[in-house]
Amino acid sequence: MNLLYAFDLAGTFTFAISGILTVREKEQDWLGATFTGFITAIGGGSLRDILLGSYPLTWVGDTSYLHVILLAVPITYMFYYQLEKLKRTLLLFDTMGIAFFTLVGTKKALDVGVAPEVAAIMGMFSAIMGGVIRDTLINDTPILYRKEIYASACLAGAITFLSLNSLGVNYNINFVVSLILIISIRILAVKYNLQLPQFKR
Amino acid sequence: MNLLYAFDLAGTFTFAISGILTVREKEQDWLGATFTGFITAIGGGSLRDILLGSYPLTWVGDTSYLHVILLAVPITYMFYYQLEKLKRTLLLFDTMGIAFFTLVGTKKALDVGVAPEVAAIMGMFSAIMGGVIRDTLINDTPILYRKEIYASACLAGAITFLSLNSLGVNYNINFVVSLILIISIRILAVKYNLQLPQFKR
Amino acid sequence: MNLLYAFDLAGTFTFAISGILTVREKEQDWLGATFTGFITAIGGGSLRDILLGSYPLTWVGDTSYLHVILLAVPITYMFYYQLEKLKRTLLLFDTMGIAFFTLVGTKKALDVGVAPEVAAIMGMFSAIMGGVIRDTLINDTPILYRKEIYASACLAGAITFLSLNSLGVNYNINFVVSLILIISIRILAVKYNLQLPQFKR
Repeated sequence: MNLLYAFDLAGTFTFAISGILTVREKEQDWLGATFTGFITAIGGGSLRDILLGSYPLTWVGDTSYLHVILLAVPITYMFYYQLEKLKRTLLLFDTMGIAFFTLVGTKKALDVGVAPEVAAIMGMFSAIMGGVIRDTLINDTPILYRKEIYASACLAGAITFLSLNSLGVNYNINFVVSLILIISIRILAVKYNLQLPQFKR
Repeated sequence: MNLLYAFDLAGTFTFAISGILTVREKEQDWLGATFTGFITAIGGGSLRDILLGSYPLTWVGDTSYLHVILLAVPITYMFYYQLEKLKRTLLLFDTMGIAFFTLVGTKKALDVGVAPEVAAIMGMFSAIMGGVIRDTLINDTPILYRKEIYASACLAGAITFLSLNSLGVNYNINFVVSLILIISIRILAVKYNLQLPQFKR
Repeated sequence: MNLLYAFDLAGTFTFAISGILTVREKEQDWLGATFTGFITAIGGGSLRDILLGSYPLTWVGDTSYLHVILLAVPITYMFYYQLEKLKRTLLLFDTMGIAFFTLVGTKKALDVGVAPEVAAIMGMFSAIMGGVIRDTLINDTPILYRKEIYASACLAGAITFLSLNSLGVNYNINFVVSLILIISIRILAVKYNLQLPQFKR
């Protein structure tokens, strides 16, 4: 449990950094940058909890999430260029973040008692909607609509987790397997430039 | 009651198709298209329920809504060109969808106990906000701000429904009358290119 | 209490007018203009209450808010040119509006029992998110990301209010002091064109 909590804070921290780094293409002051990091980090989980009616929202009930985000701001500022150069490392961090958020979100939805189909959506939303809200606010094309495999890796992981769960697989094993699956799909997709087929004929 | 439920699912199906068809102008993969259909179909009702604090949201508590949306995706894909050519039929379907969603939303808000003014807004929101959220995500001008008579037809229908309701008119008769009113306003507006007056002088 | 309520309605009225006035740059019909005023006026408070899980939302439980917004529409229409010329007066009204909404929102969040850090965010959100949602819908750059000092004045006021509150300062005195602080920061920032430092190096 404490391990999950530590990972959740780590994921929040990573998401805040990757959110703030999108600021590079836009002119934003310190407050705008902090807001961008904040929305990216807590947007997905907040939307999930609002859709589930599950209160209090994580960051409203536990200020550690805010503190971790506030910590990410000066750190991103100080290591701006280093972080920008570390694109491969960042990709790995971001991928671990979405993988982790997907599974925590899926589990949380299941615990609230919703059907597996709904839980899969909640898991995917936990991981991607923070970025989608951020992109919408800065008038960018939401990640969800970009060509890369991103949301679909989360969805595949959530479905795997739910399938193994319904087969009675041990929770910890299931978590690790599904986590590795999401990370692998995403990394392979970036490496080999894989895409889902276009819908339009 | 079962008839209302069947219509609600039919409206969801229609909204999903009309949402997915907007994809034609945008490049989207299968997951993006599904997401677009999903948001269009459940966005308005979800926003209404969140504003009312009425949980669980329809699609969270009953997976039939999700199944109907998932069914709409391959069907839209298979009949893409036929659907595009059937613009007049589609308009009729979409109009029946917004009319139905408006009245179901207005009724639901009334049942929760809000004032008629608030119920009218909730009815209109049920019908149009799914499309507004979709348009915002794909950086399009929201339907609400386009010149055509769309939201105003819903609002007129909601107000009619509420007026007749307060006069004690039988619920079924009221529903049918208000439904026909919304559909008529919308169809006539499209046919004769009617618009509300511009606000700017 | 009645004074606070009167001010809250006055703030709602002011926000609706300033929202409707943004219509000048966009083509909108009467319903679109009303919707824009509505979203600007109630968006921030609604988001705060949804994030806090505090139901019913103000305007859902008390139709006076809607009536005030509906009143703002014809008044803005009638005095369009006068209002546009009164930019300095409008700025003052808008500034009083955000100052007031910030403190009412901060107080409400505290009363719900959240931590001060969270209350500060809720206060700022109450004041600015209506405008942010409006800007997002009309595909404008959200106020939060513009160069002017706006959200930061609200945040400074919320933090001041919370600090004085934790020091045991009398509520009324605290309210007035924090209100004047927000108004002063905003007016001085506009007058001397002050900005927060850019995040990007």
